[in-house]
Amino acid sequence: MQRADHDLAFLFKFENIAWYEDGKVRILDRRIYPAREEFVVCNTHQEVARAITDMVTQSYGPFHAAAMGMALAAYECREKTAAEQKAYLKDAATTIATARPTTARKMRTWTDDCEWDAFAAIDAGTSACDAIMKGAVKKFSRRYDRIDQEARYFIEKIPKNPTIMTQCYGDVDVGMLLRVLRERGDDAKFFTPETRPYLQGARLTASVICDMGFDVTLITDNMPGYVLGHKNVDLFTTSADVITMDGHVVNKIGTFQIALCANYYGIPYYVAGFPDRTHPDVASVHIEERNGDEVRHAMGVLTCKAGVKGYYPAFDITPPELVTGVATDIGVLKPTELAGYRPAE
Amino acid sequence: MQRADHDLAFLFKFENIAWYEDGKVRILDRRIYPAREEFVVCNTHQEVARAITDMVTQSYGPFHAAAMGMALAAYECREKTAAEQKAYLKDAATTIATARPTTARKMRTWTDDCEWDAFAAIDAGTSACDAIMKGAVKKFSRRYDRIDQEARYFIEKIPKNPTIMTQCYGDVDVGMLLRVLRERGDDAKFFTPETRPYLQGARLTASVICDMGFDVTLITDNMPGYVLGHKNVDLFTTSADVITMDGHVVNKIGTFQIALCANYYGIPYYVAGFPDRTHPDVASVHIEERNGDEVRHAMGVLTCKAGVKGYYPAFDITPPELVTGVATDIGVLKPTELAGYRPAE
Repeated sequence: MQRADHDLAFLFKFENIAWYEDGKVRILDRRIYPAREEFVVCNTHQEVARAITDMVTQSYGPFHAAAMGMALAAYECREKTAAEQKAYLKDAATTIATARPTTARKMRTWTDDCEWDAFAAIDAGTSACDAIMKGAVKKFSRRYDRIDQEARYFIEKIPKNPTIMTQCYGDVDVGMLLRVLRERGDDAKFFTPETRPYLQGARLTASVICDMGFDVTLITDNMPGYVLGHKNVDLFTTSADVITMDGHVVNKIGTFQIALCANYYGIPYYVAGFPDRTHPDVASVHIEERNGDEVRHAMGVLTCKAGVKGYYPAFDITPPELVTGVATDIGVLKPTELAGYRPAE
Repeated sequence: MQRADHDLAFLFKFENIAWYEDGKVRILDRRIYPAREEFVVCNTHQEVARAITDMVTQSYGPFHAAAMGMALAAYECREKTAAEQKAYLKDAATTIATARPTTARKMRTWTDDCEWDAFAAIDAGTSACDAIMKGAVKKFSRRYDRIDQEARYFIEKIPKNPTIMTQCYGDVDVGMLLRVLRERGDDAKFFTPETRPYLQGARLTASVICDMGFDVTLITDNMPGYVLGHKNVDLFTTSADVITMDGHVVNKIGTFQIALCANYYGIPYYVAGFPDRTHPDVASVHIEERNGDEVRHAMGVLTCKAGVKGYYPAFDITPPELVTGVATDIGVLKPTELAGYRPAE
């Protein structure tokens, strides 16, 4: 198997993100990392879906987990007839793909690929589980390679020894950017907002930047505006949960307000990621609203009186006019150019 | 003594904010309220200054604490000669007024008033401590009365049954607004960002809104932009740590980025508070930078790897063009009109 993750940090290793083996899927619990490196073990594909819903993993983690969940589903139904296996896998795909609403369309394309691999194996009388695993690793590796290419285009827009602000966890889009910055010999500095309530910025982004040897400073989510205005930040960058073909960026809540501040100060905002053909326009986007109790707690402690409500929209939408460019595997595109995007071959 | 706090919530009572009695100052520990109602007891005026630095109390709490610290200083030196008492109080005023840099000029005007009251008593051979207490309560009450008037002007700008976003803890400026909304019979709804790292929005603002019977929803600090765009918010309002005479608003970090989002959506931003003659312009403002470790922790737990730095600018500055109006005791003024402001008689 080709493996594109060999010189990236702990969080980017396929086995650490989510991995199927011997009838179980284990998923790194990003809700407690880096305080502890613990894995949630799922014994059924429904438990995998539940783990995705519960945000054991996020950013691109759920897509890895989804493929592993499909491998587990194939294992679960391995003794059934071919027709029964196919029906079982179709059910499993729906359970897994709908675990989180905002990314459901995109995740369906991943479970669809797993189905293709599985159905071919079932028809050939070979192991659907093995086929899904092989196809998944190929897909993960292909994605890493494309993001590596994306980062090589992206870095051309970045001044030498830059100061960069991130938001939430940019996953491999950040990992590959860090790698090409290291290759170029840059002394890059990062400001990472912590990203309440799950603290992905503090726990994940700051960790990978630290692991890959760069200077990283944590701020709280009310500070990006000030930092952009006072700390010589060269650019703001994020990955995205969805980039619509009409140039809207759906990403972790807070991205929009940072992009607006960057725009105010004339600082470019580059998104790193691929536009998504399942989302032709912003009207196709459904913003997930999670349990407000997650907002009312910090580190498991209630922060307010019992009578206070909580509200938790998980994502926001940044309009094209606030996006300087989208770094893709075919170059850095303007948001208005995305409609013509086709993946690199 | 005139007391203006009789029908306000727990947090607005003079005795709860900070209070001198029998050689001690007790200050409500707002860092743990409302989980627990505990008071930090200060046995010296230096301990009062330390409590202010350590953010046991904030917003207008430090001004109350400063006056109480001056009363305690007067108690400490009561056996000394008149000249020695005056020198002692001058030293104490410097210790207390400089406890936090951004509000040092404004706090000096409070300690100056305490000195005036004390020195008159010393010259008359009466108790300087009693004089400071009497003067302080009069000053607190006078301020509450002025803010009551401010709220009566402010409410004229607010639609019936409004949805209002706040930031950090607006202290009595929020308290009086809540009272006049209640008097008008409004069914007001509030969104309060939590205000990391100290969570004043969650612990203080949401509490007083809840205590005074209104609907209040907590959000994290990365959500105001989304909520302003999607939840029919009628206005954004804050108090301010300093309002400069040239119309800049110095307030809790995060205010600027919310004001910018409000401006983007055409939602008015009203500041409630009095312009400060000790700050003729924005150049006179010094932004306090606190220990970055406060950012790296949530509820006492480290949120990131040990190698990650923290940065904590405590305030930011919102420029006049993002401020719709400043609600004062003489009316709601445009930021450009503040230069001509004189307090109501």
